[in-house]
Amino acid sequence: MTISNNQIILANRPVGMPDGDTFKFTNSNLNSLNEGQILIKTLYISVDPYMRGRLADTKSYIEPFKVNEVIQGGVVGEVIESTSDQYNEGDIVIGMYGWQEYFIANENEVRKIDPSLAPITTHLGILGMTGLTAYFGLLKIGQPKKGDTVVVSGAAGAVGSAVGQIAKLHGARVVGIAGSDEKITFLKDELHFDEAINYRTTTDIDRDLKVACPNGVDVYFDNVGGSISDAVFAQLNRQARIPVCGAISAYNLEKPDIGPRVQSMLIKNSVLMQGFTVGDYSNEFKEASIQLAQWLQEDKLKYRETIVEGFDQIPTAFLHLFEGKNVGKLLVKVAVPSSESIS
Amino acid sequence: MTISNNQIILANRPVGMPDGDTFKFTNSNLNSLNEGQILIKTLYISVDPYMRGRLADTKSYIEPFKVNEVIQGGVVGEVIESTSDQYNEGDIVIGMYGWQEYFIANENEVRKIDPSLAPITTHLGILGMTGLTAYFGLLKIGQPKKGDTVVVSGAAGAVGSAVGQIAKLHGARVVGIAGSDEKITFLKDELHFDEAINYRTTTDIDRDLKVACPNGVDVYFDNVGGSISDAVFAQLNRQARIPVCGAISAYNLEKPDIGPRVQSMLIKNSVLMQGFTVGDYSNEFKEASIQLAQWLQEDKLKYRETIVEGFDQIPTAFLHLFEGKNVGKLLVKVAVPSSESIS
Repeated sequence: MTISNNQIILANRPVGMPDGDTFKFTNSNLNSLNEGQILIKTLYISVDPYMRGRLADTKSYIEPFKVNEVIQGGVVGEVIESTSDQYNEGDIVIGMYGWQEYFIANENEVRKIDPSLAPITTHLGILGMTGLTAYFGLLKIGQPKKGDTVVVSGAAGAVGSAVGQIAKLHGARVVGIAGSDEKITFLKDELHFDEAINYRTTTDIDRDLKVACPNGVDVYFDNVGGSISDAVFAQLNRQARIPVCGAISAYNLEKPDIGPRVQSMLIKNSVLMQGFTVGDYSNEFKEASIQLAQWLQEDKLKYRETIVEGFDQIPTAFLHLFEGKNVGKLLVKVAVPSSESIS
Repeated sequence: MTISNNQIILANRPVGMPDGDTFKFTNSNLNSLNEGQILIKTLYISVDPYMRGRLADTKSYIEPFKVNEVIQGGVVGEVIESTSDQYNEGDIVIGMYGWQEYFIANENEVRKIDPSLAPITTHLGILGMTGLTAYFGLLKIGQPKKGDTVVVSGAAGAVGSAVGQIAKLHGARVVGIAGSDEKITFLKDELHFDEAINYRTTTDIDRDLKVACPNGVDVYFDNVGGSISDAVFAQLNRQARIPVCGAISAYNLEKPDIGPRVQSMLIKNSVLMQGFTVGDYSNEFKEASIQLAQWLQEDKLKYRETIVEGFDQIPTAFLHLFEGKNVGKLLVKVAVPSSESIS
């Protein structure tokens, strides 16, 4: 049987916000498997802010997507055919399989996950790269101590919501910044952040930050950059730490991202500001994953997922990231596992 | 005998560059000494860029100067009268005695220096706060490794010239940025920097940096901020470190210091940027001072001093800092030690 594989390729590099010309739907027939290969059916696709960077043709920590090639991204899938004796039909696996319905993987591109331990989607979120990003950025760079005030922007997103909770687990006072009343309620009522500020509705973010952080800010986990971060910088304490994880406010700008230079601010309080990506800590993924899974099992770490349904919704879901529409991890559900479709 | 003490006070906080209204010459009669006090005659006064910050009424790591009070600053002086049994006439001492010809110190405000070990002026420069600033910023934050490329701005200044030499001692390739041909010659011919760029005469600093740093930049010691630093940021390697020591380009700006925001740059290469002041490392001053003195004795560390003569020249000398007129440490010679005046 020949399988037709629906795919989404990069058609044109966007200037500013990606639009209808950026991505193109296409399809191709799948080859048959060589020895030691695995055919994977896509179940869930992760859409992430960092992918915006890969749409541009600029050198960074990760290669740009190539025009006319399938967009790469994190996928949880199911093995539906295997010529490898290490993988069997029905195995649930994770990898960078991309925006397509099927992927033929070599053995080294496959990592099996155990669906009995946690929902399979968590491996794209709280137990995956996003959870690890929160964990390492906060603990390695932010180094929150008991009683510290930790501010996190993009607080209701996949990374931000984990950051705030991990900071609480370390005894910090946690203040989130997010962009809707629904998110503020989520942060305060479900995740038990000490304070949360809606940057879209506030009339004075400087004042709100001062009220929310009466002892100043010791750690600022920066997911957004721009004027929100400028406002937090003004509240930093001596020896404050700023893990710089994202700058989503800048990703779709058509002009340079201009603002107050930070040098004087950094000197004034001996502040540390460090950019990072989760890959910087890859040799410690294992211990961190065990810790995250343990917190999850003990119900000390909560997560929310926003799941959009349908392969054709992937580009739209991706844009949701920049419109602030998601609470928690944003995923696209492409297919159901065989076990579910049978039952 | 009543001694009349010439003093310089802060008359008006400057907006932008300090001018004739900023400082005011005045004088007062000295009181006689109480028990345990020391009368110190000012020999050399240190003028430093950080002092610009203290002219403004903004909270920082060090208190603002007060209007109508004597400007505080580093001084090397001579004990000319003492009611303390710990200090004798003729002792050479160092402290924050300020812009005045005489100072009555309590015992805890006095640190004796040994004029037989090194010229007394070095204690305000290479063996003093400026040498220590270079030492700690470079080694604690910059952490240069053998073969790294280290770029330093304000390279011919007191701190910058020490930074480059200490980086060379650690096996780094060193590139200096400075603002006159005299300084470039000093950096290359006397201090043996690998390359030096005159930012005032270059027509393309980006190109010059690329040529001078064929393997990119691993450490950028930032003394200046502004567009020079923006240009260096574009050449940073992965995991680069930026000790942020000064932002002299911004100290006299009348409008906000605006430029490209750094977050995306920091994330792209997992860059660390850290503001500091020498006081952050005060518990390690002793070992560092010993190391600096040893390098100096072994002729591994050279220094230059620009000495302006005359108490009345202090405000003018201070402004030289912002006009880029000094090579190495800028000092004002106010009086000669008794030993010299006798001989």
